[in-house]
Amino acid sequence: MIYLDNAATTKPYLEALEYANKFNIEYFFNPSALYRQGLDVSKELKVTKDKILKFLGVTSSDYDVIFTSCGSESNNTAIFCSVKRGVFVTDMGEHAAVYKCFQELKNRGAIVDFISLNNDGKVNEEELYDYLKYNKTDFVSIMHVNNETGAINDVNKIAQTVKSINPSTIFHCDGVQAFGKLPYRLSRFIDFYSISAHKINAIKGVGVLVRNKKAKLSPLIYGGGQESGYRSGTENVFGIKVFEKAMDLHYASIKENFDKVLAIKNYVIDNLDKNLFKIISSSDSSPYILSISAVGLKGEIMMHLLEDKGIIVGNGSACSSKNPFSRVISSCGYKKDVLDGVIRVSFSAENTLSEAEFVVNELNENASRLKGLMK
Amino acid sequence: MIYLDNAATTKPYLEALEYANKFNIEYFFNPSALYRQGLDVSKELKVTKDKILKFLGVTSSDYDVIFTSCGSESNNTAIFCSVKRGVFVTDMGEHAAVYKCFQELKNRGAIVDFISLNNDGKVNEEELYDYLKYNKTDFVSIMHVNNETGAINDVNKIAQTVKSINPSTIFHCDGVQAFGKLPYRLSRFIDFYSISAHKINAIKGVGVLVRNKKAKLSPLIYGGGQESGYRSGTENVFGIKVFEKAMDLHYASIKENFDKVLAIKNYVIDNLDKNLFKIISSSDSSPYILSISAVGLKGEIMMHLLEDKGIIVGNGSACSSKNPFSRVISSCGYKKDVLDGVIRVSFSAENTLSEAEFVVNELNENASRLKGLMK
Repeated sequence: MIYLDNAATTKPYLEALEYANKFNIEYFFNPSALYRQGLDVSKELKVTKDKILKFLGVTSSDYDVIFTSCGSESNNTAIFCSVKRGVFVTDMGEHAAVYKCFQELKNRGAIVDFISLNNDGKVNEEELYDYLKYNKTDFVSIMHVNNETGAINDVNKIAQTVKSINPSTIFHCDGVQAFGKLPYRLSRFIDFYSISAHKINAIKGVGVLVRNKKAKLSPLIYGGGQESGYRSGTENVFGIKVFEKAMDLHYASIKENFDKVLAIKNYVIDNLDKNLFKIISSSDSSPYILSISAVGLKGEIMMHLLEDKGIIVGNGSACSSKNPFSRVISSCGYKKDVLDGVIRVSFSAENTLSEAEFVVNELNENASRLKGLMK
Repeated sequence: MIYLDNAATTKPYLEALEYANKFNIEYFFNPSALYRQGLDVSKELKVTKDKILKFLGVTSSDYDVIFTSCGSESNNTAIFCSVKRGVFVTDMGEHAAVYKCFQELKNRGAIVDFISLNNDGKVNEEELYDYLKYNKTDFVSIMHVNNETGAINDVNKIAQTVKSINPSTIFHCDGVQAFGKLPYRLSRFIDFYSISAHKINAIKGVGVLVRNKKAKLSPLIYGGGQESGYRSGTENVFGIKVFEKAMDLHYASIKENFDKVLAIKNYVIDNLDKNLFKIISSSDSSPYILSISAVGLKGEIMMHLLEDKGIIVGNGSACSSKNPFSRVISSCGYKKDVLDGVIRVSFSAENTLSEAEFVVNELNENASRLKGLMK
């Protein structure tokens, strides 16, 4: 099997599973318990939090870490629980876990605006700043790396510009597809940053919301007051410790992995038959995500043909796979013939150039055959 | 080590961890993915859901199962996302994950009432029904088994009576300390029932909200539309499958375990020195939870003395361990001398009578010594 749907989820690292195993065996205690064993587990959570901040280049004097159950919960918490009313702005490229929250904010009576995307999948910054200049805005959410196109928004610059227009605007960034993949230092202009564990070879069920201590937050989930009162519910200790080790491993070779994956992505781009495929991802997008379109064909059919050869690719965000078209690619300005044929190829550092070779051949061959049949 | 804080969390079954292991290895796929492997994982979640309904004695024609990240999230979802405004009633015995939601509802402008407890820790049913007769009530939440006293509310009868007073009242029950422990069949008068995996020897990070299909629900967490749109975010597949096996094992011997644990609990009750200890749990409470008080002493000091002998007990709910007194025991009508000395001893079927013997001796000896020192 050649697995190329790493933007949907990744295979957990065995080393990370083994590292965390003891938290299901001898250290299974409730981290809120007041006896020594409970306190020990609680300290272990603190170790993970400190590492997250370290890898983001910030410290616990300015930021804290709130463990959640997934990237979606992190996004929902930032969007619903920091600013309670007013004007909310995001863009057309956001993951459903942000986009649907903004739709819900609209239902609840907030003023909501969706900024358009450029052809390369990045947010239209001019449109964003123009909107902010003419509308006193309370909350802005712009993603770091787009989960369908891999487009990278310069969120540090965007956040700084947003704050220069209105210093009291709260800025949230969905960093799910960036964390552990792009070398990056969190800017002090960013108030909230969302992370998901299972996108970097940890297990499903763990998310993180990094909070600038200046930004107010109320809980989405009330109860026993875990996570400094910001998120109640017993923490997923095992999942958090798997995440810690997976994060350690990612950051230990973040640049090497970046270069390796970039070479694989570029190989695919260079060798796809341009008479059959349109490359949607721009050249400066994340190496981990490559969006292509078998123009005039159905991406889903291509996906299943590849599946028969043991190749797994996505056809957009698994999280919104029930929709027929991609809102995101459509917002980049593409029409039905391109949208129909979209395939998302998303890499990990475990992929190899020889896998890429095999996949490119299969893509070219299948698309050529299907086109032939249609004549 | 003798672990007697099973109401806080339980040690995951090795067999359950091993059963689910493959969902971190060869079946690590995203259950929302549209290729075969994704669909296979999705079907595995359905298998778990069907078992939950089967063990509750209901079917998928009347109920559905929503996976969440914890019991707290299940409670929050039922309380915040079914009825949007009006009159909300609960009781003074609820876990913080219900109680704090009701306080928040009050902050948001809802009419909220907290029904008192009887001396035995059960909800004062007469007071509840009287309130409902004179106040058109939209939502009622009454827990099944109290997490501090073990008091069992007859929630099926209560729900039926609530519906007989007003058929449109939505009834939620926090079943976290009951599921997998008490033989129980979910009544059709109950609209929502909350479950937590890590209370029955599964891992932390999985909760369940069982929903009567007649009851409306909107999401607490918006996004990709997982869990039939009721709860977005990639499911914690590994945790869910650990839970499934742990549930299988619990239900396979639910009556034998009940009897075994009851014998242990009764041994402790019978052999504690009644000049030193007040038994708070009533004789018809859950065998899994025993609340006692070393009257006139500090429960926390007793807890740490036992810790030195390798015995782990709780001093109330780990989830709200930052509060000095127990709201719940206090609501049963006890005063400071009893409240100060509260210790929660909570069992699992892995505990033995010989452990109980050792613990009772230590309890009697330590309390006697401390009392002697105070003279």
